[in-house]
Parts: sequence; C-alpha cells; structure tokens
Amino acid sequence: MSEGNQLHEDDNLHEECGVFGIYGHNDAAALTTLGLHSLQHRGQEAAGIVSFDGKQFRAERHRGLIGDTFTQADVLSRLSGSRAIGHTRYSTTGGDEMRNVQPFFAEFAGGGFAVAHNGNITNALKIRRELQREGAIFHSTSDTEVILHMIAMSKQAHFAERLIDSLRRLEGAFSLVGITNKKLIGCRDPLGVRPLVLGDLDGAYILASETCALDIIGARYVRDVKPGELVIIDDTGIQSMMPFETSGSRFCIFEYVYFARPDSVISGHSVYRVRKQIGVELAREMPADADLVVPVPDSGVPAAIGFAEGAGLPFELGIIRNHYVGRTFIQPTDSIRHMGVKLKHNANRAMIEGKRVVLVDDSIVRGTTSQKIVQMVRDAGAAEVHMRIASPPTISPCFYGVDTPEKQKLLAHRMSVEEMASFIRVDSLGFISLDGLYRAAGEASRNGDLPQYCDACFSGQYPTELTDSSGGDKGAKVALLAEHMGRK
Amino acid sequence: MSEGNQLHEDDNLHEECGVFGIYGHNDAAALTTLGLHSLQHRGQEAAGIVSFDGKQFRAERHRGLIGDTFTQADVLSRLSGSRAIGHTRYSTTGGDEMRNVQPFFAEFAGGGFAVAHNGNITNALKIRRELQREGAIFHSTSDTEVILHMIAMSKQAHFAERLIDSLRRLEGAFSLVGITNKKLIGCRDPLGVRPLVLGDLDGAYILASETCALDIIGARYVRDVKPGELVIIDDTGIQSMMPFETSGSRFCIFEYVYFARPDSVISGHSVYRVRKQIGVELAREMPADADLVVPVPDSGVPAAIGFAEGAGLPFELGIIRNHYVGRTFIQPTDSIRHMGVKLKHNANRAMIEGKRVVLVDDSIVRGTTSQKIVQMVRDAGAAEVHMRIASPPTISPCFYGVDTPEKQKLLAHRMSVEEMASFIRVDSLGFISLDGLYRAAGEASRNGDLPQYCDACFSGQYPTELTDSSGGDKGAKVALLAEHMGRK
Amino acid sequence: MSEGNQLHEDDNLHEECGVFGIYGHNDAAALTTLGLHSLQHRGQEAAGIVSFDGKQFRAERHRGLIGDTFTQADVLSRLSGSRAIGHTRYSTTGGDEMRNVQPFFAEFAGGGFAVAHNGNITNALKIRRELQREGAIFHSTSDTEVILHMIAMSKQAHFAERLIDSLRRLEGAFSLVGITNKKLIGCRDPLGVRPLVLGDLDGAYILASETCALDIIGARYVRDVKPGELVIIDDTGIQSMMPFETSGSRFCIFEYVYFARPDSVISGHSVYRVRKQIGVELAREMPADADLVVPVPDSGVPAAIGFAEGAGLPFELGIIRNHYVGRTFIQPTDSIRHMGVKLKHNANRAMIEGKRVVLVDDSIVRGTTSQKIVQMVRDAGAAEVHMRIASPPTISPCFYGVDTPEKQKLLAHRMSVEEMASFIRVDSLGFISLDGLYRAAGEASRNGDLPQYCDACFSGQYPTELTDSSGGDKGAKVALLAEHMGRK
Amino acid sequence: MSEGNQLHEDDNLHEECGVFGIYGHNDAAALTTLGLHSLQHRGQEAAGIVSFDGKQFRAERHRGLIGDTFTQADVLSRLSGSRAIGHTRYSTTGGDEMRNVQPFFAEFAGGGFAVAHNGNITNALKIRRELQREGAIFHSTSDTEVILHMIAMSKQAHFAERLIDSLRRLEGAFSLVGITNKKLIGCRDPLGVRPLVLGDLDGAYILASETCALDIIGARYVRDVKPGELVIIDDTGIQSMMPFETSGSRFCIFEYVYFARPDSVISGHSVYRVRKQIGVELAREMPADADLVVPVPDSGVPAAIGFAEGAGLPFELGIIRNHYVGRTFIQPTDSIRHMGVKLKHNANRAMIEGKRVVLVDDSIVRGTTSQKIVQMVRDAGAAEVHMRIASPPTISPCFYGVDTPEKQKLLAHRMSVEEMASFIRVDSLGFISLDGLYRAAGEASRNGDLPQYCDACFSGQYPTELTDSSGGDKGAKVALLAEHMGRK
Repeated sequence: MSEGNQLHEDDNLHEECGVFGIYGHNDAAALTTLGLHSLQHRGQEAAGIVSFDGKQFRAERHRGLIGDTFTQADVLSRLSGSRAIGHTRYSTTGGDEMRNVQPFFAEFAGGGFAVAHNGNITNALKIRRELQREGAIFHSTSDTEVILHMIAMSKQAHFAERLIDSLRRLEGAFSLVGITNKKLIGCRDPLGVRPLVLGDLDGAYILASETCALDIIGARYVRDVKPGELVIIDDTGIQSMMPFETSGSRFCIFEYVYFARPDSVISGHSVYRVRKQIGVELAREMPADADLVVPVPDSGVPAAIGFAEGAGLPFELGIIRNHYVGRTFIQPTDSIRHMGVKLKHNANRAMIEGKRVVLVDDSIVRGTTSQKIVQMVRDAGAAEVHMRIASPPTISPCFYGVDTPEKQKLLAHRMSVEEMASFIRVDSLGFISLDGLYRAAGEASRNGDLPQYCDACFSGQYPTELTDSSGGDKGAKVALLAEHMGRK
Repeated sequence: MSEGNQLHEDDNLHEECGVFGIYGHNDAAALTTLGLHSLQHRGQEAAGIVSFDGKQFRAERHRGLIGDTFTQADVLSRLSGSRAIGHTRYSTTGGDEMRNVQPFFAEFAGGGFAVAHNGNITNALKIRRELQREGAIFHSTSDTEVILHMIAMSKQAHFAERLIDSLRRLEGAFSLVGITNKKLIGCRDPLGVRPLVLGDLDGAYILASETCALDIIGARYVRDVKPGELVIIDDTGIQSMMPFETSGSRFCIFEYVYFARPDSVISGHSVYRVRKQIGVELAREMPADADLVVPVPDSGVPAAIGFAEGAGLPFELGIIRNHYVGRTFIQPTDSIRHMGVKLKHNANRAMIEGKRVVLVDDSIVRGTTSQKIVQMVRDAGAAEVHMRIASPPTISPCFYGVDTPEKQKLLAHRMSVEEMASFIRVDSLGFISLDGLYRAAGEASRNGDLPQYCDACFSGQYPTELTDSSGGDKGAKVALLAEHMGRK
Repeated sequence: MSEGNQLHEDDNLHEECGVFGIYGHNDAAALTTLGLHSLQHRGQEAAGIVSFDGKQFRAERHRGLIGDTFTQADVLSRLSGSRAIGHTRYSTTGGDEMRNVQPFFAEFAGGGFAVAHNGNITNALKIRRELQREGAIFHSTSDTEVILHMIAMSKQAHFAERLIDSLRRLEGAFSLVGITNKKLIGCRDPLGVRPLVLGDLDGAYILASETCALDIIGARYVRDVKPGELVIIDDTGIQSMMPFETSGSRFCIFEYVYFARPDSVISGHSVYRVRKQIGVELAREMPADADLVVPVPDSGVPAAIGFAEGAGLPFELGIIRNHYVGRTFIQPTDSIRHMGVKLKHNANRAMIEGKRVVLVDDSIVRGTTSQKIVQMVRDAGAAEVHMRIASPPTISPCFYGVDTPEKQKLLAHRMSVEEMASFIRVDSLGFISLDGLYRAAGEASRNGDLPQYCDACFSGQYPTELTDSSGGDKGAKVALLAEHMGRK
Repeated sequence: MSEGNQLHEDDNLHEECGVFGIYGHNDAAALTTLGLHSLQHRGQEAAGIVSFDGKQFRAERHRGLIGDTFTQADVLSRLSGSRAIGHTRYSTTGGDEMRNVQPFFAEFAGGGFAVAHNGNITNALKIRRELQREGAIFHSTSDTEVILHMIAMSKQAHFAERLIDSLRRLEGAFSLVGITNKKLIGCRDPLGVRPLVLGDLDGAYILASETCALDIIGARYVRDVKPGELVIIDDTGIQSMMPFETSGSRFCIFEYVYFARPDSVISGHSVYRVRKQIGVELAREMPADADLVVPVPDSGVPAAIGFAEGAGLPFELGIIRNHYVGRTFIQPTDSIRHMGVKLKHNANRAMIEGKRVVLVDDSIVRGTTSQKIVQMVRDAGAAEVHMRIASPPTISPCFYGVDTPEKQKLLAHRMSVEEMASFIRVDSLGFISLDGLYRAAGEASRNGDLPQYCDACFSGQYPTELTDSSGGDKGAKVALLAEHMGRK
C-alpha cells in the first residue's frame, strides 16, 4: 500500500500533490475535504481549499492532515458555496512556507481565479524571470504562481484564451484544477504524466487525482481526463478542448508501483491488481529458493501476495509496523539513533527465525532503509534473506513532481545489482525488468522508441525538455528560489 | 495487527495502559521513551516518565503520542538518571485530566516513590473511602493513588513491608512498576491477568508489558514475571518474592486476540502465531464456500492469513485502509456523516466485484462497525459476504483494565448469532468457539472449572470479586469519582 | 500620556503605524526592535522587520507586542545584517490578516525592495485598479503594496527614478522607510502630515516616526525629514531630494494632542510642553470654579497639570487606573457589562467625595467613555463635575492614517456643546478653541486660508483630494477591499 | 500608584497574593473574576477560582492575567454556583508550577473544602514534615496545602473545630478565605499583617484583600476583618469568632507605601492620602533646593504630588513610562542589555534639561534601578538630582508574604545613606523617618516597644517566630521544598 509514510524518511520517494475540484453541490467544501482526505497519501504537509459562493472567493490553507484541520466546523463554515477546489501538498522544502500552499488565487481585472496543480513545470524559472522583467511581483516560489501571472499579463481578450495562451508556454507535467466566478476548469499536460479523473455525484461534476477520491464520497467514475485535454465546466455543462499538440500519453508508471492508492483505478487498470501482478512477474523472472515471503510494510504487501502466489510460498507478516510513529519522532540520543528503523518496524522473530526469507519491497532509493530492514531480519534469525524489488533499478531523478534525491545519491546509479546486493547484505537481490513492469501494467512490452509510460526514473529517458535544469543540475532551481524572502 | 486504532471509535475495545521500567542504564529515560513507543498500542492518550538521578526524582507527563512529546530534547534532558519508569495511557474519561496521568509520585517521610500500573483495582473505591476517613487527601481519581496512600499510612516499618501490606489489600488486575531512591520494583497480581516481562540490556534490568518493548531497544527477553510475583531490583541484583496466595494463572486471553502486538511473545506463545492459528481453527469450525478471504484491516490480518491457508482460498487486500485519519477527524456535516466508515477504509472494488467474500475480523462489540464494513463491501459489488470472527461472542464487560461498553450495548449480549448475522447483513456469520480459541492458544481445551485464562468477556466468569461494582453496575465507580473536583 | 490604550475601546482614536529604519549598524535588527518598542503606542496589533544582510533580505512579522515577539533570540538571530526597517501597526480590520502586516517586500527584476509606511494613501484604490488592468496581482489590501506594484511597472530605468515616478502619483499622507540591497530610503509626503525624524548613532543613520525612538537607543536627533523630502542613504552618505511640488507643511496637530509620546519633540516642540500649555490655555479660555483638577488617565495628565497650574487649583489623581487590563478583557456577563468602565478605572473616592472636580481629557469622540467616567466620578460623591477638553470638538473623520469612526458617530458632529454637556451629564463642558490649540503649538493663531497644521478632524478642511472616498463615503474603500480573498 | 509592575525586575518588591470570596450571588464567579482583576497588582502570574454550585465544587486555575484568562465565556460557565473564592498569585519560584496555584481543594471524608490565602506561614515546613510522618502525601510546595492536611488529620469532630485546631498551630501572616459545601469562611492571623475587608452587595457577603475589589463590583464596604478574627458565613448570616490569643494589630506598613492600590482604604485610611502625606512629611524632613519635582512612575506619583505641594515646587512628568512593555521583554543582545531601564522609562528631556530635579520614589531595594533612573535623568541634562524616598531604608527581608531579596542584597543593609547616595550618584538622598512614616499613617509616632505596624523590613523587629528560617537563612525553606517532584 502506498499509504502510511507518516515520517519524512530519507529513503522514500514522495508525491508532491493531489488535487480535487467540484462544481454544483451545496456541500462543495465538505466534499472537497473528504476528497483531499482520500488523497492524503499524495501529500501530508499542508492543504488548501478555495470555494466560490456566488459573490466571493473563500480560502483556507492549513498545515497538517486534512482530518486535523479542515474538519473543524468553523473552517468549513467559512468555505461556503457550491463550487470548490482543493490541494494537498508534500513540501519539498521542509520549511513552513504557508505562502507556497495551494490553491493560489489572483484577482484579475476581469475577476478572480483560483488554481491548484499536481506536477512540476520544468521551465517555470525561465518564465518567472521574464515575468519579473515585465513588472510581476511574486509572492511565492511556487510554479503555480507563474501560471497566474501569465494569465494576468496575457494580451488575449477572454479568460479561456488567456488561460490557453499561458498553458501553451509551459513545459513539464501538470494536472490542474481551477475555479473562476463562473467555471470549474481541469487540464492535464499533453503527455498526461500525472493522473486526473472526472466523476459525477448526483449531477455535480468532480475532478480528482485518483478514483479513491470519488469512492469516498460515493461519486461515480466517468472517465479519465485525457492527456492534453482542457475541460471547462459551468451551468451549461462540460466542454472539452484539446488545445495542445501532443505526441501521445506518457503516464508515470511509478504511480502504479508506489504513489497511487491500491484501491484506485487508472486508465482502466486496478492499481492493486497491477502491483500484485508485478509480484507474479517477479516470481517468474527472479525466483528464490526460500521458505516464506515477507512484505516490507505497507507498500510491499500487494507485490508480496503476488510473489507468494506465483512462487507457491506462504505469505507471512514477518515485519510488524508501528502505526503510532507520530509526525515528529526525533531519535532521542546519539547512542539510540543507531538503533535505526525499529521505531517504525519490528521483525516478527517467531516467524522468521531459522527461515529462508524473501523480502518484497517496492523500490530501492538510497538503500539505507533496505540495509536496516535486512539487518533487522537477520538479527531476528533469518537463515537467508532474498530481496525482490517491484520496480526496476531507480537510476535517474524525477522532474515531474516527485521528490527524488539527486542522481548521485541513487544507489542504482552508483552500483551494479551485485554491488547493491552486497551493500544491503542480502543473499540475492532481484529487480523486475522494465518489460516485466510494462507487462504487469497491461502492455505486451515496452516500446523503446516511444515508451507508453514515463519511466525516466528507471530509463533516464525524459519525455520533455528540462529547461530550468539544463546540465542535469536539479538543485539549481531550488537554490535560486529558496532565498526569495517572503511572508509566512 | 492490533496497532492502528488512531481514532476513538465507538466500536473498538481499548487497552488502558502499558508500563516500562529500567534500572542501571545511563540512557534510562531515552530507553523508556522507546519502550513506551513500542507499547503505544496499549494507550495513545497520554504518557508519563519518572526518573531518579541519584538525588532527585524527575517527572514529565504529556498528552499525545510518545513520538510527538517525549522525543523533544529538552524533555529527555530533564529526565536524568539511570533508573526510570514510564506509562502510556488510554483515557477512559475522554477529559483532559492530566492529574490522572501516571506514573504517580509521593514523597513519604522515608523517601520518594513513583508507581505506574496496567490493570484495574476492583475494590479501589472502597479502600479510597477508608483512607479518606483516616485523613488522606486525594488528588486524582486514579486507582494508582490509592496504592500510594496505603503505603503512606501503613504501620509497617520498612518500605517493602509497607508495599506488600498495601498490595495484599487489592483486588483485581495489576501489573505495576515502581521506583524508589534505591530500587526498581515490579509486581503482577496473583492471577497475572495483565502481562509483564523481564529483560536485560547489557546488565541493565528491564520490566515491560510486552516483549516488543525489549525488541525495540535490542534487549534480551529473560522471562515473564510470574503471577503474584514481586521483584525488587537494586545494585545487589534481583530479588523475587511471592507474597500473595494465588489460585493459578488467569491471563487475559483477549490479549492474544487483539490487544498485544503480533510480534510479542507471551508465556512462550507468539501472538502472531496464535492469531494465525485462530484463523486455521476458524476455517475448520466455520468453513465458507467463497472465492477469497479479506481481512478487516489491520487487526484481522493474521487470522485472515490463517483462514485462507486453512481454507485453501486466496488472501486478498479487499479493503484498503487510509492511514492518515489524524487524531481528530470530525465528519464535517450531517449529510456527510452518513457516509460512515469510509474515512478510514475503502473497498477495493476491482478485487471484490462479483466475488463471494469471507471477511475476517477480530471481534464484534456493538456491531456498528461491522455493519458499515459489510455495507461497504456489498456496495463494491460482492456477490456474498461471509463474516468470520476470531473470538467468541463478547457478552460481558471487562473490569480488569479494558474499556468495554456496558453489557446492554454488547451486540452478542442482546442477540443470537442468527440475529447478529441479520443485523450486520451477512450471508453467514461464524465465531470461533471458546475451546477453539483455547486450542489456538496452546491448550487441549478449556478447563470449565478453573479456566486457564481470564475469558470473562466471553464467558461471564470473573476470576475476582468486583467489590466496587457489586450488582454489576459498571458505571458506579466512574460516576462516583468523576465529579471529584480537581486540578488539571 | 498617549501610551496605554491596551484595549480597543469604542471610544478612542488609534494611530495606525510607526516606522523605523537604520543603516550601518551591526545590531540593526535589535535596534529596530527597540525603536519599534518605543513606538508601540502608534500600533499594538502586529509588527514586522525586514533586514538585509549583504546577500539576502530577511523578514519577520508577528502579531502582538514587540516585547513579546521580537525579543525572542531566534527571531532576532534570523534578522541578520547591518540595515533594517520596521513597522508597528494598529489593525483597522480587527481580522488576523498577517498578509497586511508591513514591511512589504518585492523582488523586482533589478533586486529586492522592502517598504513600510505610516499614513494613508487617499487614491490607492484608484491606482490599484489601474495596476490590475495592467496585469498586477495583489496579495493584500494594503496601500503599501500599491507602491510596490507602481515601482515594478514603472518604465523608468533606475530604481530612484522608478520610486519618484511612483510616489508622485500618490495622494494623501505617507511617511515611509525602505531598504534595497544598497540603500536606506526615507520619504515624507509633500504636506508632511505624519512625522519622520533623522538620527545618528555612532555614524549609523536612523529614520523614525518620533524622537523617543532615538532616545531609547541613545541615538542623537539630527533633524526632522522635511515635508516632501526624499532621503537616500548608502555607504557614500545621505542624499536629500525634494521631488514633489509642495504647498507648505500641514503636520497633523492631533499628534500633539494625543498620538505622539509626550517625551517626543516634533519640529522643535516638546509634545509634553505643548500638552501642558494646552491646559494652561484651557484654564484661561474655559475656567471653572472648583476644588481640584483630576486628569482622565493617562492621556489627560499633562493638560491637567497645565490646567491646575493655570487655574491655581490642586492637581490630584482622582481616578486610578488599573494597568493590568490585559489584551482581551471580555466583560463576563450581561449584568456585569453594565458596570462599564471600572475594569480600567476606579474613582479615588477619598479625594473626590464632596468636592467640585475639574476633569481634564484629551478629546471626546463618541462620548460614551466620557459618560461613564463622569458617572463614576459622580458615584464617588463629587459635588460638581466640570469637563475640560484639550482639543476642539472632533467633527470630521481622518483620512490620513487615523482610525476614526464615521462622521455620524462623532458626538460633536451630532450635538452642540450644550447638548454634549447634557449627554455626558456634566455641570459644565469646555473645549479649547482652534486658535488656543495653535497658540499652545507655538503659533500666534490659525491661518484660516492656509492653516499651518492639518486640523481636518476639527475643521473639516482636508489638505488633499480624497479620491477614493469622493462623496465623503469613508466606508467605500474598506468595503471594496475587505472581501479580497487572501492568504493569511 | 502601585499598579503597573508588569515586568519582574530585580529591583522591586512583590506582593504574593490577593484573595476574594463571595457568598449568595448568582454571578459569584463573574464577580470574583472582577474582584481578582482589581487585585491584580497583588499578583500577576496566575489565578484560580473555586465555586460551589450546590452539588459540586468547580475549579479553574490559569496562568496569566485575569482579563486574559477568566473572562473567556467557557471558563466562567464552568464555574457555576452562588458561592466562590478566588486567588491571584505572584510566583516566587518563576517556574510554571500550576500545582501551586491556589485555591487549594481537598475532599475530606465529611465533604469538600477549598481555601486560598495571602501571607506566609513561618512554620509551614516544620508542620509539613510532621504531617508526612503521619502519612500525608503532599502535591505542592505551598503553605496552603499544609492547612488542608492539618484539617484532614485533625481529631476534632466538627469542621469548624478542625479548622480552628489547625489554624492555631500556624505562625506567620495569613489572610485566608475558604468555602465548604455550606459556608464561606474568612480569617486573619492574630496580628492582622495582611489586609482583609468585609463587604456587601445586595445582601451577598464579600471578603476581599482590599476595598478596590468592592468598588469594582459596586459593593458596599462594611468593615475590616479584625486581626485574629474568624468569620463564618452561611444562610443564617455571619458569625464572628476570636479563637486566637492576640497581642494587638501589626498591619504591614509597606502596604501603605507600595503594595495596596491608592484608591483602597485600609483601617479607615485612604492609601492615596497616606502616600501623599508621606510626600508632605518628606518635604519637611528632607527638603531640597530644586526647580521641580519628578515622580518615578508610577508608584512615586502620590508622594511626589505631596512633596511638590509641601515644598511649593512644580510637579512635572519628567520621566515617561512605556506601558507596552509586554510580559516577556528580553533584552535582545548583550550590547543592548547595557541600555538598561529605558525599555520601560524615558527621560522627558525638554522638561529636565538644565534643571535641578527632585526625584521621588517609593523605596530602594537593591539600588540598581535607582542607579539607572538617575543616570537617565542626568543624561537628559539635569543640573542636579536629589532623590527622596517615601519609606525608611529597607534593611531586612520580609517573611510574611512579600518577595524580598536576601538581606545581603539590600542596599540599605550594606551601606550608609551617604554611601547609597554615592552609589546611585545623586547630589542628595533623603529617606522619610520611621516616625515620619507613622505620622503619615495617622499615628503620633512609632511605639518602639510594641509598634503599631509590622515594619520589620525597616526595623528588623519581626512580630512572630521564624521557625523555618531560624538562623536568618531565608533560603532554607525554598531550597528544601524546591526539589519536591511534582506534576505541573
């Protein structure tokens, strides 16, 4: 399961956002709250909701979990109106920068506009500098503010034209939702890197990052918003436009592996079923002579079930997770810091002792967590430890909205599989192949010339220009923006 | 898994406490923090630690999770010393009564004493009134303070004698840890209703509710403290006494079913293995003609694995849990309140649709949660729903430290199994038998005259007098004490 | 004394801001903190400081008193650099709008600029709308942000030209301070409605609203910044420019009566001495046959001393003030609310009983406070109560940075002096004349054609256009801006 | 005025408490809140109120000013009932020890009792140890808890007897108020060191430390409770008892000089009038050849008015006070710390420059504040500075409820008047004589054998035994108790 990464560990990847929008329901803000709650796995640091009540835009932005902040009666009562958008966010900076919490809002001469997006604009910094030269004053370091200023300064006459004019200048990945005083807007970048679905609740339109956000409010799944599609929803219904040139879908395959919730369905594929099938493929590609299959909880569970099924081995909870880690657990002393990962996990010695164990995890990033997990399993008496990974080696950083370490810190960039096996001290280590992963996701195989998915983190093939990060320097943008002095 | 009940739902049972003590380690308070963290499933409301630094006793008590409170550097730095005890607590009152947070401390004429316990004294109210007549002034409504006043007013000369003199007057369940300026003390009531184990870390002595608290700090499990045993630890080593008459062990069998962590080992039995074995027994006693086995997460998982194994059916995560519920999720509006349990769970429609599903849960208390879960699974398209419960019907409240509803609210007290099946709307409902449960826990069968475990919640046979609650009125004690006017 | 209005009472006037700037001192932020502390009487709701450390701008904005917020070590340590500006603010909205807390900052294409001002721009709304049409996105409702956008969009080449270009478009009152990465800037509107002085501390330049902010840090008073003067300070020294046409000084005469601190010196006049002299003039213009003179504390004290001296009557503290009112005293019940003003004041019955009392206060706004004070003095047994007011009747609202009620709520707008005397139930009521006030402030008399001061609140003669409030509708601007949806 | 010491400076004396009680009014808690607000000058750290609503005792204790804490609607709504007592406290420890905040409450076998006192028991430590030997468990270090345990353990049959039995064992100063489920109780120690008055509000009985607490609620002053008197108020009326032997009144004369509010009347004397009269006497005893009289605000004002009147010199506010010091002003850096007292005061240079100034202050404790004030006045250009003090030299610490430094730190203990003048750098220094002070307080002169007041701080003649501090070691008690480990 992808849920549950309550701590910011060094060694996990983090999705940066989930978005939600609703048009035409009296409980718009409350339903947005629930939708964001079900998207909490896409960002736990802060959230925001903007509603429009027919006269005014209303905004609330809070740090912390939706269930702790937006469920307060006074918060919801301030968010009146039948139309709302919301955003949940994983902060890349770690700072408490409330000014970066979406949705963003601007009052243009022609009326207000609020917008939130999931993804990352790879030429935002370049555009930002151009806008500053024209007199724009930025109040955040967020990509999203760039979109607002482009609209504000567009020479087009009508809002939709200004919006399209602006979005066409963007490179990168963006699934965005927005509201004006008349409309709900949704748009997915031409490659459709991030997900966005359309739903229906008793006639109200809904846009959401994943189908689990439809389920929680009992809404009906209608269809995925298409790559490059712009939908504009108002009292007359829904209008679909395809204003961008597109070279075909490149959905992020890692959403299947880790980010999306297992109960979500994307492009017709059950995320849980893909994950389990990865385990089946993995058992075939990388079998192990062992006594039992143990998932690294919680994200390794579906693949482990599939592996156990494929390999004909028992599935056991050989690692027990402590769900009460809290949000700020600081390891209390230096000597205790060495105890490592046990704050969150404990080996289930009674099941492991003397056994040959297959450990199944979703991915290896830096390798430090794997190292600790393996050590813990060995300390509990495992006779052998065979690690199987439900994704190919992660060799390149993501520039499309996922918080990955720099290339040099990725274990698979630095080492061969054999070296990695030695580093994390396992008896054998196996990754699923790229083709195996594509098969689990329903393809016959990977199309090397024009892959069906974005798999840049595994292949290094980026589907867009990386304007702000030319030379591969991922840190440049962050460094340039980090020092912008702002209001909290 | 028993972890994870982050919300106070109506329909779960709650353990009230976990205890931890350590003697002879320079990081005493930090290790106590970790020990309590691993016992967090036994109480999430508040925690306290008292240390002794050779000169003074130091105390900290905080509301909230250990990982959010006791890991602050300044908190730990105030808890100096090589000896400490700690307590984690589930509040029965719901009020913010910090004065009830353990450990309790008293400065007697002969020196200070801090004490914490897990359990419930069933004649505490009677003793309290006697002590008040002698001039004792109470500052809390806690059982634990009764123990302190008994010691203070004992006519015995030495501390150990005063302590034994006091403990002999107690009825009920108590596993306690205490420190004086010289000693670490541990004691388990004569029936050993609640767990307490002894561990060793490089020569330091440790007492803890469960072995998972030894694992987290890398301590070695030595043995269980025996029912009715008093251990006194000081620089000369450990001294064991058996000051009570005892009629044999009556350990709480529900610790195996739900309370204890699955990675703990109690009296030589792996909790995980017992739970899985309950599933195996249940598949034998109450088979179902179905397509797949789905656990109600997280506590139903081990029994579901056992059931699937026993029944030869696939095990699938047909219900997905949202781990980000937060601590205070308030359902935002009336209309939304009817959506019910989906805040925490969602059905995995892709796996369930059209299938005959066996749902495995640990217990049914009021039945309201089961009702919602079943409805959710039906809404996701299950063809049939067969519920299997890993414990016998819960018919009587607990008076030994578990927060159960009054008898009248227990579904199994009000209804037959058929009526319950109809109430929660399942195609079939099956509970494990008492004998089946005892078999899973390693006994040949239940000894009806003198059961090997306390199973009062399933059998109504209470192993001690219930002095304060004669007439079965569980509320009396609470009502009498609740209004004690006190300082927060 | 003007200090001490710790409560937001209905019946006081509130200055909206104090500003401070310093260039060339290693303790820049700490000295700014002290300067703002001494200007706290000009605004108690929130404060902000921006420093520049040679590389970056640093900002802190906090609600509450300087002494409670900016003196935290971590706050000051973040404000590194040898150059800083600060602002203390009285919130007109009462809302918790941190985004309106100054200084404001913008990063222009050519570098950053932070600015804070005291006063009110009377055509800010008109300019704001023009800027929005050009694509500016506003993040606050503050006048100050208008200045930033004008600079950002100016077509001039150099910063100073862009600044002057922008300031020339402003109507109203503004005493502003700003910093760039090279300079400290100070400017006073052409009429010099609000004060601004220049000081020196061991070679460091200081700008401040009042001289008391120089005193607190031991700085030397150099001179007042002149009406319409722009000073630009950098490493080469101070440069003075007069970029505006000006029709002569119109300093706010109410600063002498009430706002400024009595220990400040403005345009060469001691505020305390002016206030005392008002009392002397008042005793001459409006004598009273009485036994003793009692100030309404604390703002009436200097005039009361002057009155007592002028009238040859004893000065006595016949009303005692409770300094511990706190910031949020809510009168606890309806029945108690009727007790009124006694939370803050009590009559000193022993001195008042049976006596003919002259009460001296600074002004009457709505009259409700005067009513309560008089009643309290009568209840304490005063034989007669003669009220003397150290300013002329307040008949018109202020549009230059003072929070006055709408015209209709001003007692002197609604009633003659006789009616007012009857309303507040005094035996006699006397105000100083406009000429008397001008004499106390050092003038021979008021020049009716071109008054030497801004006395619009007493005369209705406004020295500038009131573009945003044409038709005298003071509320228009507030209403239009209040609903701007924004981030806190 | 004695109000206004919002900061805990080294160099002021602090009263430790004010008490209030009311019997027979539906707004009992709200009126207690107002009463405590008017007694805030007697303690600003924390406050508590206990009410009895006919069935239960209700308690609230909060840190901070009454106006910020007890005026919250929910706080008052919890304090239902027609009978209440309250206490406001200056913390001697500086720690955040909520367990020491009064009133204290105990549930005896016969019913509850809440009590609060102003003063200090000089044999509390001795009694505490005796009680601990009998089995009492203490939860605070407060004297007040000693009283509760004495009552709990008394062998007498009825509550009044148990109370009297207990109070007779006390040495020291105490003005206490208490409530049982039937009665309101007031008692003053045999010497009447601390004040306590009886009032009436429409038939409701009131007890309060000072008459200003009657004024604020419009209650009528009835009489002072007599030294050694116990009053018991219930539905049948008021009963007065004199259960102690007494050797005559020894009221604290420093209450007149500094502690009490100037608008209070004690034993028939207006505090303001006594203070002013001290100034008149001082001008006679210690005249000065000067140009003007300047009070050290605010406590020196009444004596300065008297001095000016007596000496025929003008009274001027030559020092201006900043009322916005906040509660936690930390001087930001070392270099700035040297600026000293100016955070709170500034010299009014325009009035002082070139003048011969008489400064009037209430007392000199360590002398550090005087030193800074004098320096500030000199820096502002005063030609001569003559300091006149409205009390005799303070040579001995107080053991009766006032927080004084140890003897060695008292300037007047260490130096002659000439040395003190040199230390604080004045041209002349004069204190009122003990006889002068007694004259101002209405006596012909001081009776050396049996002084009419407690003036131990000026004379060293303590009116009671100092059991806990034998050997003059004031710190002993604090040291012994400080380490009691407790709950916050």
